Amino acid sequence: MNGRLGILGFGRFGRLVALHLKTHFDVVVYDRKDRAEEAADLGVRIGALREVASCAILVLCVPISRIEAALEAVAPHLGAETLVVDTCSVKEYPVALMERVLPAHVDILGTHPLFGPDSAADTLQGKKIVLCPVRLRSLRRVVAFLRSLKLDVMISSPESHDREMAHTQAIVQFLGRAFLEMGLTHETMATPGYERLIRILEVVQNDTWELFHDLQTFNRFAGPMRQRLIESLSLIDERLGG
Amino acid sequence: MNGRLGILGFGRFGRLVALHLKTHFDVVVYDRKDRAEEAADLGVRIGALREVASCAILVLCVPISRIEAALEAVAPHLGAETLVVDTCSVKEYPVALMERVLPAHVDILGTHPLFGPDSAADTLQGKKIVLCPVRLRSLRRVVAFLRSLKLDVMISSPESHDREMAHTQAIVQFLGRAFLEMGLTHETMATPGYERLIRILEVVQNDTWELFHDLQTFNRFAGPMRQRLIESLSLIDERLGG
Repeated sequence: MNGRLGILGFGRFGRLVALHLKTHFDVVVYDRKDRAEEAADLGVRIGALREVASCAILVLCVPISRIEAALEAVAPHLGAETLVVDTCSVKEYPVALMERVLPAHVDILGTHPLFGPDSAADTLQGKKIVLCPVRLRSLRRVVAFLRSLKLDVMISSPESHDREMAHTQAIVQFLGRAFLEMGLTHETMATPGYERLIRILEVVQNDTWELFHDLQTFNRFAGPMRQRLIESLSLIDERLGG
Repeated sequence: MNGRLGILGFGRFGRLVALHLKTHFDVVVYDRKDRAEEAADLGVRIGALREVASCAILVLCVPISRIEAALEAVAPHLGAETLVVDTCSVKEYPVALMERVLPAHVDILGTHPLFGPDSAADTLQGKKIVLCPVRLRSLRRVVAFLRSLKLDVMISSPESHDREMAHTQAIVQFLGRAFLEMGLTHETMATPGYERLIRILEVVQNDTWELFHDLQTFNRFAGPMRQRLIESLSLIDERLGG
């Protein structure tokens, strides 16, 4: 693949996208904030919103809660065959928005890269990405390109994705927040299992409250999952005579 | 160290003790069940309860709930200077029992090996063991011997041990049971954090309900820890508008 690729939102994840794609595309980025320094660090160009939106491919790297505003802002400026790609950790909500807000002439692809700036700083090798194809002239071409980056590509419906994420990613984050709230941390007498658990939960504790909140509230399966976890723990506590 | 070492209880943990100590001691074992096959496999001898109890060192490898009965059974047969060692995952309860039930002439050492038949099958190198010295002619000699086995030796009071374990080992097991109850397992779209979490919880899911129950109920800090975890999760769920 080649041509111009626009990145909307140049926070930590947008910069990760630029890092891995700048050798494959002419990358141009836009952020509401001044990101001149970060762009210079990565050797990519900052452009106007209008230019970024008109690229052959537009990758949205904004928080879930700002995706609607972002879509409305780019919609009038999209190219005739622009492929719009979102990267949100939930899929039903942004995919529905893209279908509603974006003009019929553009291609739409929902994605959830199951990695972040920490886990994929060095390599994408073996990292997972879930694709939810919405309207796409050539899914095969996209999949082949992502596989050439050594990514493990999975195809899913937005609903299946969100259902599975509620019971995997969202539960880990939920536990991470609870451990933070309880002040649980490394302990000298810890068992190997606890040490590993704390290391996992420390990673998700780095997430902002905004990311945590969005993942738990924009995924309609996350609330019931949280309830089930609380109920399961309460049930076991009762069985123990607690 | 040398001489005769008795092991009371020849389940999985008792066999792990025999495996690592048989080159250092003349090991003799006793179990209520017929363990002739397991003893032959390890090349150790089965003896009468009376013989096992009279060894220079007696290591108790019975479940926490059977420790009182075991202590009462061995008490009349203990040698003049026998060192009685328990290996329970809680410490206040068995240490108090040993102090009450055992005769004044024996030495008493509470221990909690923070490893099991799975994690220490090959080596003890770097594995942790917590010691709660109760009455001991030479703690230094015991510590030196355990260090010669490459163990990481920690000294604690029974109370500090139980308090810390409630917030480490017990919480991992509690979560493991809840995940089992919820039917959570490996998923294709899992994030790296979730994959690692499931692998940790699978290990504790191998524990028997008896071991889980004992660890949660014979440790007086475990109940309050379970309550705090449930409360923290409920609080965060509420903050999310759950």
